[in-house]
Amino acid sequence: MARPEIDGDRLVRDLQQLARIGATADGGVNRLAYSPADLDGRAWVTERLRELGLNVRTDAALNTAATYPGTRPDLAPIALGSHTDTVPNGGRYDGALGVLAAIACVRALRTADVRLRHAVEVLNFMAEEATVGGGTLGSRVMAGLFDPAILAQPAWDGRPVAEHLREAGVDPDTLAAAARAPGGLAAYLELHIEQGGTLEARDEAVGAVEGIVGIRRYAAIFSGRANHAGTTPMADRRDALVLAAPYVLAVRDLAVDAGIVGTVGTVRVSPGASNVIPGRVELSVEIRGLDEATLDRVEAALRTRAEADGGRLERLSSKAPVASDPVVLEAVVAACERLRLPYRRMSSGAGHDAMCMASLTRQGMIFVPSRDGVSHAPDEFTTAERCVDGARVLLEALLALDERLD
Amino acid sequence: MARPEIDGDRLVRDLQQLARIGATADGGVNRLAYSPADLDGRAWVTERLRELGLNVRTDAALNTAATYPGTRPDLAPIALGSHTDTVPNGGRYDGALGVLAAIACVRALRTADVRLRHAVEVLNFMAEEATVGGGTLGSRVMAGLFDPAILAQPAWDGRPVAEHLREAGVDPDTLAAAARAPGGLAAYLELHIEQGGTLEARDEAVGAVEGIVGIRRYAAIFSGRANHAGTTPMADRRDALVLAAPYVLAVRDLAVDAGIVGTVGTVRVSPGASNVIPGRVELSVEIRGLDEATLDRVEAALRTRAEADGGRLERLSSKAPVASDPVVLEAVVAACERLRLPYRRMSSGAGHDAMCMASLTRQGMIFVPSRDGVSHAPDEFTTAERCVDGARVLLEALLALDERLD
Repeated sequence: MARPEIDGDRLVRDLQQLARIGATADGGVNRLAYSPADLDGRAWVTERLRELGLNVRTDAALNTAATYPGTRPDLAPIALGSHTDTVPNGGRYDGALGVLAAIACVRALRTADVRLRHAVEVLNFMAEEATVGGGTLGSRVMAGLFDPAILAQPAWDGRPVAEHLREAGVDPDTLAAAARAPGGLAAYLELHIEQGGTLEARDEAVGAVEGIVGIRRYAAIFSGRANHAGTTPMADRRDALVLAAPYVLAVRDLAVDAGIVGTVGTVRVSPGASNVIPGRVELSVEIRGLDEATLDRVEAALRTRAEADGGRLERLSSKAPVASDPVVLEAVVAACERLRLPYRRMSSGAGHDAMCMASLTRQGMIFVPSRDGVSHAPDEFTTAERCVDGARVLLEALLALDERLD
Repeated sequence: MARPEIDGDRLVRDLQQLARIGATADGGVNRLAYSPADLDGRAWVTERLRELGLNVRTDAALNTAATYPGTRPDLAPIALGSHTDTVPNGGRYDGALGVLAAIACVRALRTADVRLRHAVEVLNFMAEEATVGGGTLGSRVMAGLFDPAILAQPAWDGRPVAEHLREAGVDPDTLAAAARAPGGLAAYLELHIEQGGTLEARDEAVGAVEGIVGIRRYAAIFSGRANHAGTTPMADRRDALVLAAPYVLAVRDLAVDAGIVGTVGTVRVSPGASNVIPGRVELSVEIRGLDEATLDRVEAALRTRAEADGGRLERLSSKAPVASDPVVLEAVVAACERLRLPYRRMSSGAGHDAMCMASLTRQGMIFVPSRDGVSHAPDEFTTAERCVDGARVLLEALLALDERLD
């Protein structure tokens, strides 16, 4: 049989065409989850899947699934996919590349008239971006992780999530019932842009994702005494901002020392006037890392340090890290080596649908470089060459998994 | 002749009675400049002045002036006073004490049937608080420092200053014409609460004010690169908040070293989300000090340091320091010594009407302690004993000035 090959020109053309749906004047894309433009984008993807002769299903959340049959109906399908919704004024690659590369893999198999042992399922997840329901809504529904409390929460425009669903023809009450049973898939593999500058800076073509980081968010609160900035001598002050400022550097230093990332992204000063000494300062603190024990250790150090500085640390949320499945990760690594593409093992600093799919099956991810590390913006860009490299790794890894998994 | 003596009980009763006008439920006072409550308070003061047989005048800005004649009509009057308007939900002492103590001095002279060589003028300034027209509006009008551009600016409630004036029956176009000529007063002396905790902490009764500090305000701006807090490795970041944090401490240290006060009261972080690395941080920086050369030196150091830290310093405003007149200051010091009251020479960290009166005549101020350094709040408090001490110093200093000035 002929070895299947990605049609790179076609993949690039598909990326350009999908980018026209919801296109903005400055080169970005607006396909907010469940919006008419998003539904148009999904319809366009469905047409591409039907062109390949696939039977396309849409579940209660409007996730799209299509199956290219295998030779062994007793084996569960290997799924490939991502999402085609975007953030407001987002880019042309985030999500779209993964869906179109999955289609390119099936197209390659079909053109070469190849059937794998496993069926191949293409997935286009709904509402991966945190515009409606806090992110990865479609994959959470599929993985049985859906929490109905989300329905009442405000979406990006302040209106409740349920209202957005109903406008798209979705009955919110049926979502939980759309969960799939574990074991229904043999594996899930997703190609995505890196959204960081690591690969570009090192001129590497591919990231073999070892896992998706855990995210912990905190408030670090420092209390002083608000007072008149003119009449209060320096020696008599307890300035909450003077207490909080060194903590910004401590977050940076503790993250660097632990080999994770740590960020203070917001500062709230009360009362907040140029002529009043700050009485209270609240910093947002976020740490992300792949190893739960490391996050525990850094959290303890952040707490100790806050208390030593006269403050306190309150944990606001915690999402556990999700490691890639070793078999899937090694299939990706083997694919890079076979294709002689420079690659790096790395973690994903952002959340993805693969995170939720970990509840259902083995999963892993492939990254390609983001120019200047930019994403979620109109100038999000990955070269055509790297997009095609990513799709080729996806196909090679699929072939490897098809051999290795039973 | 009998030596004039302050009637302390009467002064305390006057303070209590004036505090009823505009009283709030939690013990504070609302007499915002030009409001009905403020006009009621001024009418009550006018009655007290008339009780003493004085002829009361009101100028175009609604400053109140009343003169107790002297024996030498060729000498200009010595003025005593302050203001009876308050900040929103302010205290019972800020401003009121100075006006009522001035009345207590005239009452003491009249009771003792004493005439000084100089006439004594009692002044109740309009709009000293920065609620309508940015502060010290009445004394600026009197001193010829009024800028008509103020009329269009928003007052505390967002409506233009001119609207507040008209509602109180003031014709905004007549304000500039109400300026007094320099030389019309021999001196101006004002008793006021300290609004800081220096006197209380050292158990001193009186502050002999050496001058009112200059105030300079700046924006310190640090630019980094906004980026994804999850996908951007620590080594690839340029975090504007990490650049700005040490500057907060630098402002504190430079102020302490120079013997002035320095405050960062606000922090603006852009874009300002817990999962985005800060791309831009703007700090408000305020320094206050009595010596212009010191302020120049600290400003230069602040600028150098900002630039060394990758930022820049923009000056937003500058008010020059105003030194007390040496003759007036020494009269206050002599009064404290004569009365055997523990006193300290100190600067005023806040602005006052005396600052504007410096354009017209010699001026000085007397401070009494503020409990916990609190002002502009319902729990602003000065003990009855210290209020009376302050009035006694005011009277003694008046007697001394009457002898020394020609």
